[in-house]
Amino acid sequence: MPVSTPFPAKPRIAILGAGALGCYYGVRLAKSGENVHFLARSGRAAIMARGIRVKTPTERISLRKVQVYGSSAEIGPCDLVIVALKATANDQLAKLLPPLLHENTVVLTLQNGLGVEEPVAEVAGPERVAGAICFIGCTRTAPGVVECVFPGLVMIGKFGKSAGERTHAIAALFSKAGVKCQAHDNLEEMRWKKLVWNAPFNGLAIAAGCITTDVILADEGLKILARRLMEEVVEAAGKFGHVIPRSFIDLQFERTAKMGAYRPSSLEDFEEGRGIELEEIWGEPVRRAKSVGVPVPRLEMLYWLIKRKLAARKTVKKRH
Amino acid sequence: MPVSTPFPAKPRIAILGAGALGCYYGVRLAKSGENVHFLARSGRAAIMARGIRVKTPTERISLRKVQVYGSSAEIGPCDLVIVALKATANDQLAKLLPPLLHENTVVLTLQNGLGVEEPVAEVAGPERVAGAICFIGCTRTAPGVVECVFPGLVMIGKFGKSAGERTHAIAALFSKAGVKCQAHDNLEEMRWKKLVWNAPFNGLAIAAGCITTDVILADEGLKILARRLMEEVVEAAGKFGHVIPRSFIDLQFERTAKMGAYRPSSLEDFEEGRGIELEEIWGEPVRRAKSVGVPVPRLEMLYWLIKRKLAARKTVKKRH
Repeated sequence: MPVSTPFPAKPRIAILGAGALGCYYGVRLAKSGENVHFLARSGRAAIMARGIRVKTPTERISLRKVQVYGSSAEIGPCDLVIVALKATANDQLAKLLPPLLHENTVVLTLQNGLGVEEPVAEVAGPERVAGAICFIGCTRTAPGVVECVFPGLVMIGKFGKSAGERTHAIAALFSKAGVKCQAHDNLEEMRWKKLVWNAPFNGLAIAAGCITTDVILADEGLKILARRLMEEVVEAAGKFGHVIPRSFIDLQFERTAKMGAYRPSSLEDFEEGRGIELEEIWGEPVRRAKSVGVPVPRLEMLYWLIKRKLAARKTVKKRH
Repeated sequence: MPVSTPFPAKPRIAILGAGALGCYYGVRLAKSGENVHFLARSGRAAIMARGIRVKTPTERISLRKVQVYGSSAEIGPCDLVIVALKATANDQLAKLLPPLLHENTVVLTLQNGLGVEEPVAEVAGPERVAGAICFIGCTRTAPGVVECVFPGLVMIGKFGKSAGERTHAIAALFSKAGVKCQAHDNLEEMRWKKLVWNAPFNGLAIAAGCITTDVILADEGLKILARRLMEEVVEAAGKFGHVIPRSFIDLQFERTAKMGAYRPSSLEDFEEGRGIELEEIWGEPVRRAKSVGVPVPRLEMLYWLIKRKLAARKTVKKRH
C-alpha cells in the first residue's frame, strides 16, 4: 500500500543515537551527500573535535565536519528520522521524537527483535513508521570511532503494511550510500526470521555461561537445544502467517558453523555491562507465541534465565 | 514380597565411603553397638589417628576406635553393605563390592536420584539391593569430621519390590541407632517424589548463576519455572504409576520458603569443584520421561545447561 506523499529528493535526515549503528549508517549517508544530523547524548565533544571515523574490512571512512547536536529541538523537523538507540532507551522516545517530526516525517527504527516499531508508533503514529533489520557486525570502540568487521546488509519494511514508495525511496538512499539494502513487503516476517538465529544463539551465549557460538555448536546438548528453540520460534511465526521452512533452520546452523568463535552482540553487551534487548528478543516473542496458543517452554525458560542474569549483574553493580 | 533368609541379629556391616553420609550413619550404627567396618579410600590415616567426630544441633558424637580399611578384601564378606559413595564413583562398584558379598548380603545404596540401584544390581544381582533416601543436611569438613545441621530422616525400600523382612530389619537397625527411619513399599515412588524438589532447586541453583533457594523464590520467572519443572517431574512419575498430588508441589514451595538462603547440595558440590549427580537427578529422569512419551522440555534444557557448566568447569581446571 504505497503512501501518497512522495519522499523528498534531498531529505533532511536525523540519526537518533551515535553508537555503532548510528555512526556507521550516518557517516555512509553523509559521505554520499545526504543532509545528516546526529543526536548524540554522550561523546558529542569528541565527535565535534575529531569527527566520526569508521573502519571496515576494505575502507576507512572519515567524516570530519559532523552536524551533531545535544537535543532534538536543535535539529528540528526532518524528513527521515533513523532511530539508532538501543531498545532499552525507548522510554526516551516520547521526549526525543516530537521535535523531529513534521507532517510527513518517516521514522525508521534499526532496533532488533519484536515490538520495536510499537514504541515509535505510539509517539509518532503508526502510519509513518518503518523498520530495518541490520545484518551487520560493528562496534563503537570510542566516541565517534566505529570498527565494522561485517558490513552485511539492511532490509527495510513498513510497519504493519507492505513496502510503499517511501520505503523504496529510503532503501535507495541506503544503497546509494554504499549499504547493501533491500525493501521488503513483510517487516514482521523478517523480524521473526531474524529471531530464529538471535533467540537461541544470543540467548544461549549468555545463559549457558558466556560462551561463543562455536562452543554452542560443539556441545551436543546445546546444539540440540538451539534447534528446539528455533523450532519454537518457527512454530510461533507460523501461527502469525509467516511460513518459515525447515530448511531455514538447517541454513542457520550451516552459516553459524562458518562463523567460528563468534560473540553475539547480546553477549558483548552483557559482558560490557550494557543493556540488552531482553524483551525484544525473548520476552515479546514469548508473549506473542503464548497469545496464539503456541507453547514455547524453552524460549520462556531462556527468557527467565537471562532476566535473572541481568538482575544479578545489577545487584553486583550496586554492591561495588 | 519378603525374602525368606532372615537378617542376622548381629550383622556384619560395611560402609563404602567415609564422606559425610558414610561417617554420620556409620558412627551412629557403631555407637549403638553394631559391628561396622569403614572403607575409606582417602583420609584413612586421619580416621585411624583421631577417629570420627560428628556434630549435630544437639549432640557431639565421637568414635575413637574405628575399624577402617583401605580395601574391600581386608573387610571381607558382610551381611549389610551400605554404599555411601557419590554416584559419580559408581564405576568402581565392580571392584569394590564383590569381596564384601556372601550369599545373603544386602546392599543398601544411599545415593540420590534415579538409576542408582541399577549399578549396584549389575554387580551384586537385583534381588539383594535396597535403596535409601536420606533427608539430611551434613557436610564433611575434614577427614572423619562431619557437621550435621539437619539430621532429618531416612526412608528405605527394596529395589523393584515392596519392603520385605530384611528391609524392615535394616530400618530397625537405623532406628535403634538414633536415626529416624522408615521402611517404604515403593522405593521408586519415593525417588520420584524427592526429585520434585531436587530437580528444580538443585538445578536452578547451579544453572541460574550459583544462587540460593531464597533467590529462586524471590525471582518471579524462576519461581514459575521451578513449578513448571516440578509439574514435568510429576507428570513423568504419573506415567510410571506414581501418583503425586498437586498439593505436594505447593508443599515444596511452603517448605522451601522456610529454608531461607539454603544452598542445595549440588550447588555446594559444584562450587567446591566436586562431582554432582548430573545423570541421576536430571539425565535419567529425562530419559525415563521421554521413554514413556512425556515431554519434559524444561527438565531437559536444565540438564543440558548444567552439563555445559560442568564441562566448562573441567576446561578451566585443565587450563590451570
